[in-house]
Amino acid sequence: MNTSEMRNLILSTLSPPRAEHVLLTEKAAVALCERWGEDAQKGSTAALLHDITKEKSLDEHMEICKKYGLTPTDIEMREPKTLHQRTGGAVANNEFGIKDEDILSAIKYHTTGREGMSLLEKIIFIADYIEDSRDFKRVDELRETAFRDIDEAMILGLAHTIKKITKKKKMLHVNTVNAYNYHINKRGTD
Amino acid sequence: MNTSEMRNLILSTLSPPRAEHVLLTEKAAVALCERWGEDAQKGSTAALLHDITKEKSLDEHMEICKKYGLTPTDIEMREPKTLHQRTGGAVANNEFGIKDEDILSAIKYHTTGREGMSLLEKIIFIADYIEDSRDFKRVDELRETAFRDIDEAMILGLAHTIKKITKKKKMLHVNTVNAYNYHINKRGTD
Repeated sequence: MNTSEMRNLILSTLSPPRAEHVLLTEKAAVALCERWGEDAQKGSTAALLHDITKEKSLDEHMEICKKYGLTPTDIEMREPKTLHQRTGGAVANNEFGIKDEDILSAIKYHTTGREGMSLLEKIIFIADYIEDSRDFKRVDELRETAFRDIDEAMILGLAHTIKKITKKKKMLHVNTVNAYNYHINKRGTD
Repeated sequence: MNTSEMRNLILSTLSPPRAEHVLLTEKAAVALCERWGEDAQKGSTAALLHDITKEKSLDEHMEICKKYGLTPTDIEMREPKTLHQRTGGAVANNEFGIKDEDILSAIKYHTTGREGMSLLEKIIFIADYIEDSRDFKRVDELRETAFRDIDEAMILGLAHTIKKITKKKKMLHVNTVNAYNYHINKRGTD
């Protein structure tokens, strides 16, 4: 499957609003790759695939987990929204033939983040937040920061994630807290 | 040392604004004890002592740690504000003769919270937040909730703590996150 075929296949499986979000995330990811010296092709691929299972039902997620040997954690079962990053990684690997571990990780941690993220992982995490259709308080600050200081943008993005989750009274994922503390700690020692 | 002597000694060691906060926290704690069937004497003692080391300098905290065999954690060293709950517990135990483990725990976890808090621990955590001089967005909602559903009040209080910390770009304490997730989880299964 070449890049163009992959793009068409991905977009055909998504609803129009999701496809639009994915294309805008790709655009933001490519711009961030260019800004920070990351491979734009990898950014494009990870962005195109990051929400590949986002529209699946819980039953479909469970099916994917079973098929590819993933064991959902307690928090993933309670908050299925967090499951799509891991099932997305498995589908990207097994159904789209993506073997680059960095691209797979960028998909697998794009919602929660994690401690010690690679540049590509950060780019996908942030691109997902700042793509042109996103509209929330301080999104412009996050956009500006992403091109000025990507680690500072991670702090803003992760703090926003934590705020959203606590506002909805959902459980905080340990990876999100670790990613946030990691960047706060890194910032203090730089 | 009788109760009256202890009260006078505590208040004499604190600045006037801190002493006022402590007395108001005691008032709120006693009211919550009466509401939820906890021993009001224990609530009073824990509230009076909860900030006993709050005004100490970092050097003084280190001295107390050394004297009573406490090892500050990384996050306590980075965020000395979180240290006063543990040094407060040690001072309450060693200098005020408090041996009741529940009172000591209520002091030791009143800032961060922790997973599986006792009723007294919750009361001190919340009393500290809702005492009459506290003034922040949604404090009235927290006050009302504290007398209606103390676990729901813990969620609001912990979410507020998490929001405050991320807004200041400080590190999140693992106990705070665990306490928050514990209550969210408990709520889901009650």
